[in-house]
Amino acid sequence: MICDLHNTTSNMGLTLIHYTTSDWATLHICKYLQTKITKVPVRVMVLDVPYSDAYSLESVSKHGFSIEVGPQPHGVVRADIYVIMKEAVDLTIDWIHKFNSGTVFEGGDVEAFKIIKSVDYPRDPVTRSLNAAVHPQLQDRDFCLLKRGDPLFLSFSGETVKYEEEEPLHPLFINECAYYEKGIAFHLAKRMRLTIPAVQVQKD
Amino acid sequence: MICDLHNTTSNMGLTLIHYTTSDWATLHICKYLQTKITKVPVRVMVLDVPYSDAYSLESVSKHGFSIEVGPQPHGVVRADIYVIMKEAVDLTIDWIHKFNSGTVFEGGDVEAFKIIKSVDYPRDPVTRSLNAAVHPQLQDRDFCLLKRGDPLFLSFSGETVKYEEEEPLHPLFINECAYYEKGIAFHLAKRMRLTIPAVQVQKD
Repeated sequence: MICDLHNTTSNMGLTLIHYTTSDWATLHICKYLQTKITKVPVRVMVLDVPYSDAYSLESVSKHGFSIEVGPQPHGVVRADIYVIMKEAVDLTIDWIHKFNSGTVFEGGDVEAFKIIKSVDYPRDPVTRSLNAAVHPQLQDRDFCLLKRGDPLFLSFSGETVKYEEEEPLHPLFINECAYYEKGIAFHLAKRMRLTIPAVQVQKD
Repeated sequence: MICDLHNTTSNMGLTLIHYTTSDWATLHICKYLQTKITKVPVRVMVLDVPYSDAYSLESVSKHGFSIEVGPQPHGVVRADIYVIMKEAVDLTIDWIHKFNSGTVFEGGDVEAFKIIKSVDYPRDPVTRSLNAAVHPQLQDRDFCLLKRGDPLFLSFSGETVKYEEEEPLHPLFINECAYYEKGIAFHLAKRMRLTIPAVQVQKD
């Protein structure tokens, strides 16, 4: 099992990122972290990317996920973020020890957010420089439910750009520093419910 | 007059930075901004640096100050921070127009924070890498009053480093990204009161 540790400028709390919805081991760990960590929201995100296009380390291991914590500026250590990440890693190792010692983990449902698409910043058609920033009413509201007419961007001349889609979706990774160069202001995700079975280690 | 525009990862609100306590024009502008801007605190900071060692653009002009706004991560545009900076610049120009048109500005007192010294992060004596982060109880509390025994840092092994000085002082630029390489975790400042005279433009 590999965990790839990340931090973000977005208000993502503690997010456990998967390339698949079918890894019972990591989903059980998510459920375990959700019961143990109460200071920040603990959520599951699923990328719609095939393993052949995966870009984080855990994709080469049998089991694994990325642990994403935020908000923290790049180049800065925040003690609160450090403490949350340490707690997530310690509890993950804790779960593995319990599992290997024969503990039975009951099945159940886990809520997950599956990425559907990404939205770029409004840009000048020629220079490609930004025309707008994330709207103050959307900034830091990762995982809220966006409905038609909700503000998305505030242009530098003062106009509001609104959400025009019929389908309400959840914005994730709002205003992440490293995504400007990728052309991503935020992802849009659909909420889903995953069901995991009870598990217990198989003794030889 | 030159204004040098900056942003910081520290929770500095809107801070107007001076190399001197004797520029009546800029101190009047600070007073004007304090009466007009209510969404964020507007404060005056004074550097204890001679003009020969000055490192910002306004030091080459007859009048001027740096405008510092935060918190904003480096490499990120936040609409709230952009709007505050724009308001500060617009109101500065507004004051200059009013002054040049003959408006009388009454004198009075302006509160200022004068930098006394800087404090570095606890570091490994050999490698110089950090041993601790700013304590969660100090993070984002720029301009509070630090008293003996207050927490400063939380080490990566969990110990708290406390403020040991007899004199209570105000921490500024707490955990600013660009100051790690300068060996500054925060500045310590003394609060002072500056008195400015009533002013009116001299007509030819």
